[in-house]
Amino acid sequence: MIMMAYHYLSQTRHPIAKPNEAPRPFQRRQSYRIERDTFGELKVPSDKYYGAQTVRSTMNFKIGGVTERMPIQVIRAFGILKRAAAEVNKDYGLDPKIAGAIVQAAEEVTAGKLDDHFPLVVWQTGSGTQTNMNVNEVISNRAIEILGGKLGSKDPVHPNDHVNKSQSSNDTFPTAMHIAAAKEVHEVLLPGLQELHDALAAKAEQFKDIIKIGRTHTQDAVPLSLGQEFGGYLQQVKYSIERVKAAMPRVYELAAGGTAVGTGLNTRIGFAEKVADRVSALTGLPFVTAVNKFEALAAHDALVELSGALNTVAVSMMKIANDIRFLGSGPRSGLGELILPENEPGSSIMPGKVNPTQCEAMTMVAAQVMGNHVAVTVGGSNGHFELNVFKPMIIKNVLNSAQLLGDASVSFTKNCVVGIEANTERINKLMNESLMLVTALNPHIGYDKAASIAKTAHKEGSTLKATAIKLGYLTEEQFDQWVRPQDMLGPK
Amino acid sequence: MIMMAYHYLSQTRHPIAKPNEAPRPFQRRQSYRIERDTFGELKVPSDKYYGAQTVRSTMNFKIGGVTERMPIQVIRAFGILKRAAAEVNKDYGLDPKIAGAIVQAAEEVTAGKLDDHFPLVVWQTGSGTQTNMNVNEVISNRAIEILGGKLGSKDPVHPNDHVNKSQSSNDTFPTAMHIAAAKEVHEVLLPGLQELHDALAAKAEQFKDIIKIGRTHTQDAVPLSLGQEFGGYLQQVKYSIERVKAAMPRVYELAAGGTAVGTGLNTRIGFAEKVADRVSALTGLPFVTAVNKFEALAAHDALVELSGALNTVAVSMMKIANDIRFLGSGPRSGLGELILPENEPGSSIMPGKVNPTQCEAMTMVAAQVMGNHVAVTVGGSNGHFELNVFKPMIIKNVLNSAQLLGDASVSFTKNCVVGIEANTERINKLMNESLMLVTALNPHIGYDKAASIAKTAHKEGSTLKATAIKLGYLTEEQFDQWVRPQDMLGPK
Amino acid sequence: MIMMAYHYLSQTRHPIAKPNEAPRPFQRRQSYRIERDTFGELKVPSDKYYGAQTVRSTMNFKIGGVTERMPIQVIRAFGILKRAAAEVNKDYGLDPKIAGAIVQAAEEVTAGKLDDHFPLVVWQTGSGTQTNMNVNEVISNRAIEILGGKLGSKDPVHPNDHVNKSQSSNDTFPTAMHIAAAKEVHEVLLPGLQELHDALAAKAEQFKDIIKIGRTHTQDAVPLSLGQEFGGYLQQVKYSIERVKAAMPRVYELAAGGTAVGTGLNTRIGFAEKVADRVSALTGLPFVTAVNKFEALAAHDALVELSGALNTVAVSMMKIANDIRFLGSGPRSGLGELILPENEPGSSIMPGKVNPTQCEAMTMVAAQVMGNHVAVTVGGSNGHFELNVFKPMIIKNVLNSAQLLGDASVSFTKNCVVGIEANTERINKLMNESLMLVTALNPHIGYDKAASIAKTAHKEGSTLKATAIKLGYLTEEQFDQWVRPQDMLGPK
Amino acid sequence: MIMMAYHYLSQTRHPIAKPNEAPRPFQRRQSYRIERDTFGELKVPSDKYYGAQTVRSTMNFKIGGVTERMPIQVIRAFGILKRAAAEVNKDYGLDPKIAGAIVQAAEEVTAGKLDDHFPLVVWQTGSGTQTNMNVNEVISNRAIEILGGKLGSKDPVHPNDHVNKSQSSNDTFPTAMHIAAAKEVHEVLLPGLQELHDALAAKAEQFKDIIKIGRTHTQDAVPLSLGQEFGGYLQQVKYSIERVKAAMPRVYELAAGGTAVGTGLNTRIGFAEKVADRVSALTGLPFVTAVNKFEALAAHDALVELSGALNTVAVSMMKIANDIRFLGSGPRSGLGELILPENEPGSSIMPGKVNPTQCEAMTMVAAQVMGNHVAVTVGGSNGHFELNVFKPMIIKNVLNSAQLLGDASVSFTKNCVVGIEANTERINKLMNESLMLVTALNPHIGYDKAASIAKTAHKEGSTLKATAIKLGYLTEEQFDQWVRPQDMLGPK
Repeated sequence: MIMMAYHYLSQTRHPIAKPNEAPRPFQRRQSYRIERDTFGELKVPSDKYYGAQTVRSTMNFKIGGVTERMPIQVIRAFGILKRAAAEVNKDYGLDPKIAGAIVQAAEEVTAGKLDDHFPLVVWQTGSGTQTNMNVNEVISNRAIEILGGKLGSKDPVHPNDHVNKSQSSNDTFPTAMHIAAAKEVHEVLLPGLQELHDALAAKAEQFKDIIKIGRTHTQDAVPLSLGQEFGGYLQQVKYSIERVKAAMPRVYELAAGGTAVGTGLNTRIGFAEKVADRVSALTGLPFVTAVNKFEALAAHDALVELSGALNTVAVSMMKIANDIRFLGSGPRSGLGELILPENEPGSSIMPGKVNPTQCEAMTMVAAQVMGNHVAVTVGGSNGHFELNVFKPMIIKNVLNSAQLLGDASVSFTKNCVVGIEANTERINKLMNESLMLVTALNPHIGYDKAASIAKTAHKEGSTLKATAIKLGYLTEEQFDQWVRPQDMLGPK
Repeated sequence: MIMMAYHYLSQTRHPIAKPNEAPRPFQRRQSYRIERDTFGELKVPSDKYYGAQTVRSTMNFKIGGVTERMPIQVIRAFGILKRAAAEVNKDYGLDPKIAGAIVQAAEEVTAGKLDDHFPLVVWQTGSGTQTNMNVNEVISNRAIEILGGKLGSKDPVHPNDHVNKSQSSNDTFPTAMHIAAAKEVHEVLLPGLQELHDALAAKAEQFKDIIKIGRTHTQDAVPLSLGQEFGGYLQQVKYSIERVKAAMPRVYELAAGGTAVGTGLNTRIGFAEKVADRVSALTGLPFVTAVNKFEALAAHDALVELSGALNTVAVSMMKIANDIRFLGSGPRSGLGELILPENEPGSSIMPGKVNPTQCEAMTMVAAQVMGNHVAVTVGGSNGHFELNVFKPMIIKNVLNSAQLLGDASVSFTKNCVVGIEANTERINKLMNESLMLVTALNPHIGYDKAASIAKTAHKEGSTLKATAIKLGYLTEEQFDQWVRPQDMLGPK
Repeated sequence: MIMMAYHYLSQTRHPIAKPNEAPRPFQRRQSYRIERDTFGELKVPSDKYYGAQTVRSTMNFKIGGVTERMPIQVIRAFGILKRAAAEVNKDYGLDPKIAGAIVQAAEEVTAGKLDDHFPLVVWQTGSGTQTNMNVNEVISNRAIEILGGKLGSKDPVHPNDHVNKSQSSNDTFPTAMHIAAAKEVHEVLLPGLQELHDALAAKAEQFKDIIKIGRTHTQDAVPLSLGQEFGGYLQQVKYSIERVKAAMPRVYELAAGGTAVGTGLNTRIGFAEKVADRVSALTGLPFVTAVNKFEALAAHDALVELSGALNTVAVSMMKIANDIRFLGSGPRSGLGELILPENEPGSSIMPGKVNPTQCEAMTMVAAQVMGNHVAVTVGGSNGHFELNVFKPMIIKNVLNSAQLLGDASVSFTKNCVVGIEANTERINKLMNESLMLVTALNPHIGYDKAASIAKTAHKEGSTLKATAIKLGYLTEEQFDQWVRPQDMLGPK
Repeated sequence: MIMMAYHYLSQTRHPIAKPNEAPRPFQRRQSYRIERDTFGELKVPSDKYYGAQTVRSTMNFKIGGVTERMPIQVIRAFGILKRAAAEVNKDYGLDPKIAGAIVQAAEEVTAGKLDDHFPLVVWQTGSGTQTNMNVNEVISNRAIEILGGKLGSKDPVHPNDHVNKSQSSNDTFPTAMHIAAAKEVHEVLLPGLQELHDALAAKAEQFKDIIKIGRTHTQDAVPLSLGQEFGGYLQQVKYSIERVKAAMPRVYELAAGGTAVGTGLNTRIGFAEKVADRVSALTGLPFVTAVNKFEALAAHDALVELSGALNTVAVSMMKIANDIRFLGSGPRSGLGELILPENEPGSSIMPGKVNPTQCEAMTMVAAQVMGNHVAVTVGGSNGHFELNVFKPMIIKNVLNSAQLLGDASVSFTKNCVVGIEANTERINKLMNESLMLVTALNPHIGYDKAASIAKTAHKEGSTLKATAIKLGYLTEEQFDQWVRPQDMLGPK
């Protein structure tokens, strides 16, 4: 962590762009151990659990920086998978002591205690192999430490033979992708959407008796209640939740057990099912083993589908947030029907100028999710043969979309929606000035006279009532009796 | 048709935008009737059922040409809706004679007998109002004709008062969108995908005993069966069908009954439900009235969602078609594992050069669908207040995607998939030369010796067997007994 | 035309989807000639110039329908190329009589006289080979006819040996793509943008003295002139034109002369340059031979780049059209600063409801262009080795974007922009009610008193002036002297 | 930094997602100062230069986490702008002591010495106001410190009155966007592309005499040289550089001086030009003041355009990296024409399996850039009136695309391109087996005999030469003389 801080401060060109470089000489207190792979010796920071393959990757992929690291959710999901695999491997004969140490180390990964040991960026091998090895190395070394061994010795817990037993990057990485995505959906996205849903439901109820002018083509139209208007938003969010849930069954399918190309070579019969069961038990989510492992490695259609659901949620959010900022525009020269909560100092000179900043954050998030979706689509479509190699990029974008939508929903709800109030005075004024209410006169005085009232009122800038009376088509009492917006809100 | 030619002739600037024919002399005989709207007189071709509002639109929206017309599926769907509305209106008191004539005219619209009377382009008002009026005008005039009246007289069947009764463009157009989309999905897309599914299932079965080299990272990997490889594609198509179906429930919701802003003003209680029932009966699809009419007019999330499903299908198709063309590449210098059917003369000089043209059409379709999806996403996200006004653009793209994927699936199946044969000689050769099979020796001679065999064979360009024997690690009999690709296809 | 009408009316499932099918039995008057290719006999309609390869393609690619045909602009561009090639081939020894007939036939293709002879859809082989052959067949047969020969005889003008001489689909199709794109840009897009540019320039001038409230975050802000606001739109269009032009140099590069893989095998030295010169002379556009033919066949980066420019234009158009509809929203409950021309009957009951239909068409076009751009991007990125095989899809989308933007610019200009009027009464009212003008008092009475005026006015719903006087901070004369919006429009 | 480390380790739900929360009670060593804004008191960490508005933003926008922070390049660009503004303000009368301290503090921001003081995320107000205030606060406090004052006192250097003098968020943020984008392009992207360009140029030269089979439609075609093939890639990169440069003129335009809505209210005549001059001097890049400030605030077309150029670069990169991995596929069952450098341990058991990991990183980057471009497009198109409020999202994506493409180009070049070797043995073998070479016999023995040779050879799986001799059409000497691939590489 110190190092991370150091890097953050010391970078020259683009500071957060190069944190995964090998430590630098003038970092005097940094000490190393020497590890080797088949390419030669490598210096591994003494205080890190990762090993040679991780360091090698940091040297070969200087693309982006800390902001481009493998999403921590993937690392945590790997912890769950590695724990599940160790437990199942124990059933199939793995030394219980080794299995136990792996389980403990893996739990620490999942708990976030070892986050600092995963320096790799997304822009690595497209199978995520290097992150799988990063995880294997960290768990192996931590397990060795637990068992009193020496870091880097691969003894008694070997990163490949034990931590990666019955596994391949090709099936573990997609498994971690699905675990991470499902957890993000359940822990961040759906709760966020539910919070927004509930707040909109409360507003729809609160506003149910406020009748206002409708707008179609952005132009004045016949009335509806403000509750009905918010009810439309509510329905969008309700369906957002349904859409996301509808995409999950295929995300719950885990590739684990497919190993290198999907055949399950080097695994035991039952391994795949048992691992899925364990992951399900550990997460409380209904994971199952993938129906077809070949599809699960070679394609990521399930995540493209989920991303499509997120894209639809983004579309809904853009609409809702856009409407709210326009309805709250003003204070004098906008539509002014809603009063949005003021969360930060507006212009120092201009009281009442409430910038709809939460709407702005939400609409920016929506645009980002639409972009992320295209990245996922392109990556998903470009797999070849037995392995799609856009895996890290795909999961990065899916997680980003889910997190941003979930977080933004909470922020938007708490800092905007719950505090929205109706400017009833303004709403009533616009309502009563509306020319569209003339529609209600048709049955009483006929279309032609009604149209004449409306045209005259528009031309003269007067109200319908005044014009109607002036034209002698009806009395004030009749107008008040016949033109009742509250009777225009539904079928008869 | 004549008028179409007329329109063509009246354009001065870019002729190629319109239906690509040379102007013709014999269009001299065009006669007109005069109709008027509130803006003045308009010439309407005598042989056309449409009226002033349609002609006005052709004058105001010279954008694109015949290829940019409102998809005919929308027109046909309107026929279903107008018929259903007339039948329900009859229950609520519409003169049975008028209702009957509307029903008959609407049936003709749906049957495609009046296709020639819908000249409007997609790029019109964003509510589709002008197409709704086009439909109203055509049905009104045809119904007038049926009842012996005079075209353009609006008597005894008025386009607004009768054909559009209890309706508004704002609810009819989205209703027609959903009817058209659902029908296209059921009549074109799903049958196409099913046909591809069945052909891939047959191939997976046919190829189940052919063992071949796997490829990950586009590089040689451990073996799988060709049946397993096709089984992966099959799974993708199976899930494609599931994905599309999973998006349909919200597409089955119809906006009809919402009228201008979703309140249902000017309709009768029960109208919405009855219309949905009639549409369901007429189409055989489980349409229901929309849970929330405000959402149904103001947003098109259901179609964005469907488009997302189509996007996922496109991703699957891109993967499958791409794999097949690479596996069939050659004849001498490619992978050459598949023999693709030859559908058209290849190069006159080069026998055996089978261009994978069906794969190319399919991958182009996939790219188009991905693009269409972004257009739908942008349009879906930009609705304002009570009405989304990107309706014609949205439905154009959704229908295009569904149709292209459906048609391309059939073409790809018939002209490519069913005729694919395995080049078993080539497959076996590659398999037997593969160095990855050495994996099977690990348990018998240990990792180091196995690695040494592989390295030596790679360096010397020889086979594993020859090298293993030469190095003295095992006998030919042992090699044949231990290295059995057929034992590498699953867990043990 | 008749036949097309026939097809249009006779289709059963999706009517415009299957026009390229083999003729049907009940088309009684249709007569055929028999042609053959290496796959056997084919019936070719007697009145068509195309031949066996074209018919074969209609049988193998039943994807989409007439709306999915190869854009006619590509066909016309092929006419230019084939003419140029024939003329150059004559210089290199092609029989002048044959060359002359080819030139004449090619001119007819370009003039649109033979549009009806190009039935193929975009969704064919990804190299466009079948369309190249369609062109070769049509020109060959028409040239044969000119020379008194027999259709289908390939004598004395052979489609391959003469019309396609020194060419390959692989270089002719990209050449036609570039010619078509450049012409569409010059004939449709740029004139359309220029028309919009000029109209906006006139409006910016017309409105230069109208001072209005500014809006940031959709909220009231300090003033600017309406002319300045339109000047911003004008700048966007000005740069739109620049952006498109900046992309053209690489579009002017022609692949002709590259033949099969870019080497120019089977051409003569100088052929490529001469053809580019001829095309340039025939079109009046600065076409040159491509710097690198390998790049010109294997990639379509130049069109991806052009599509990127069109995407930027679409972004500008979305902004401008969106602003205009919001500024024109009302008549009573919107911003109401602009009065948009009324082009079609609005609601029959509601005078003054001008739906901003031209803005809607424009924003739909913008969304479509953004989608088209993604399709082009995906297609452009997926080329393999010596040939990109997404050619027809790419050019379809580029042409569609250019045409839609060009046409929509003209429609938007003519039917909206030129007729926009400022609602000065409304503008002044909003301006004078604005609280932001208080900014002007800071130098005179200090920030605290100014803020106090604004806060009080906001709270009490009164004007700045009334509040300022009431609070006793200044006199009416001082207010009028100090708060002068016209002094807030620029630096001092 | 300690705190950041702490947060990194201590987060439970999504660890890197919530670093911008208010400090927690059990962080005992953290001390605070109390600042206040109009909403009340806020605790500001004692060791931070930022103030109340920054803290307020961290409380209101808990969206994403450290990975979602405002790109540090924007912060650094702000340092340049604030320095330039202070220097120009000094010319217009700002106290030189204050100006000097601002300049010094701003330089520290640009130098990266204060990176730790910018905790805000992208998902804030869409104008970037909060980041502008974050910068103002940090520079103000650091300047106060330099001058011996008390942090948070706003004396003698006020964040608004002095640091933000003659500025508004509305013009400073877009100015910082352009400075950051231009610097990233010049410092990261263009050098990266140039490095790739040079490496490809060297390879094209190195491989110029290696003749190989061409591939079109992924199928065997006529030969070209490997140098020609790499020359195509080289051309793509050459044009990539041109494309990016072509987009820069409009990026060099700076909004500074436009203040709140573009009028330049509260600035002095000449301020805008002088600031642009200073920024140009400080960066060495040809920045100028924006031609039209209204456009510069209300739209970000210049960055959409730049993003379009980056998208085109991504398309090129996808093509190049894809080709290289396929040409290097194998070692036994792929195309095997290229030998790619091995950068990390391949499979432990499988020597020669070089996973094309650099190609994978590059293609993932390309997909990301395509997605980023859509996000930028959507954001760019959704501005309203005088201000586009998708600013932070837009610049985040543009910078990300530029950085990823630049970094990936360097990584791809160093770790892949420079080490590529031709597998000449394999290339020659495929070349000599090719049936396409028969084309060369046409002039000598006629088309029919040549075709017969090719067909027979294909059928019998023999070579052209053997078949030709066997069929008695020519002698071995004649074959060797006539079939010379080296004569097939260009026009004659």
